[in-house]
Amino acid sequence: MQKLILHEYSQSGNCYKVRLAAAMVGKHLDRREYDIMKGETRTPLFLSRVNPNGRIPVLQVADRFIPESNAATYYVAEGSNLIPTDPFDHADMLRWMFWEQYNHEPNIATLRFWMRWVKPENLTDIQRLQMPGKRKAGNEALQLMNDHLEGRGWFIGDQTSLADICLFAYTHVAGEADFDLKRYPNVVQWIERMKGHPRYMSMDA
Amino acid sequence: MQKLILHEYSQSGNCYKVRLAAAMVGKHLDRREYDIMKGETRTPLFLSRVNPNGRIPVLQVADRFIPESNAATYYVAEGSNLIPTDPFDHADMLRWMFWEQYNHEPNIATLRFWMRWVKPENLTDIQRLQMPGKRKAGNEALQLMNDHLEGRGWFIGDQTSLADICLFAYTHVAGEADFDLKRYPNVVQWIERMKGHPRYMSMDA
Repeated sequence: MQKLILHEYSQSGNCYKVRLAAAMVGKHLDRREYDIMKGETRTPLFLSRVNPNGRIPVLQVADRFIPESNAATYYVAEGSNLIPTDPFDHADMLRWMFWEQYNHEPNIATLRFWMRWVKPENLTDIQRLQMPGKRKAGNEALQLMNDHLEGRGWFIGDQTSLADICLFAYTHVAGEADFDLKRYPNVVQWIERMKGHPRYMSMDA
Repeated sequence: MQKLILHEYSQSGNCYKVRLAAAMVGKHLDRREYDIMKGETRTPLFLSRVNPNGRIPVLQVADRFIPESNAATYYVAEGSNLIPTDPFDHADMLRWMFWEQYNHEPNIATLRFWMRWVKPENLTDIQRLQMPGKRKAGNEALQLMNDHLEGRGWFIGDQTSLADICLFAYTHVAGEADFDLKRYPNVVQWIERMKGHPRYMSMDA
């Protein structure tokens, strides 16, 4: 098997997705930490060699690189039972992964980053003005997840898939962005179900 | 083959992705048009039956539904040569599709929508304040595409893939959001290459 190197910032939920998928399929990742608060992913070397978009995570496979958390997560889990083979289920899994990047991450992850890393007192005016919209959209995303999970154990089918892993990453730490998860009991139960997975690995492991 | 119904708004680039992929693989789509400006995708019936997220496109496969443009596009092209089978190339294709939804669509498509559909005079203050940031991020996205296309015919490998289709949809109409594509000559050439594909179908077809 080719050596896999994860270029990451460990407290990023996007990076955690890749680690959690690797743990669940029993693959080893070498880890390279970058301090995003010090601009370490915006250096000329990083931009030219690792990711022209200046973001982590990036999965390195020999001398090639896969940016975008959900694409890297897919590569790590390729061929495992985390990826359904039925075409409809497979597309449905991708649906939740694209939804996560469009409707969930820009709201819940961004608020978490602004509140805990940038800190409220350092936000720009335009960031501050966007907060109520992101709060509303984040709660709508959690409500949509809660509704979908009514009567279901997992996001698609009857077992864990990448949809669960990609949605879990920022949902289980949504409290750090002051979202009140108690309002979404199906989501809370699903989080506990994920944590009970025999190969679960926590974000700080 | 199961009948495929596309729930759409035809001028949406996200909907066009699904039609273009279908044309390129020779599949027929039945089309159902919704007027998003009249809220036709936010009715209780649409939300309960088609997509709880209230957005188009949604691909209907018998009595099941796939929201999210890039997931629906994947389903339509499943098993075709628009989707590479090599695991790295496949993940690299997904990388560009996720990048499109995170870095390209929220800037270029959103500005196009605000400028041509909502109209500048009807924008809210918060929308107006976000425009310079979206303009800058949109140009950065086009520059990143232009750099990547240097010396390449397509986004991944040596033939058209879903990465090209998903990126083409809003890029080729970026002028409608006042982006100056002439600044990105590799992108302009790639657009012409896409239009020269033997199964190319235009957005207004």
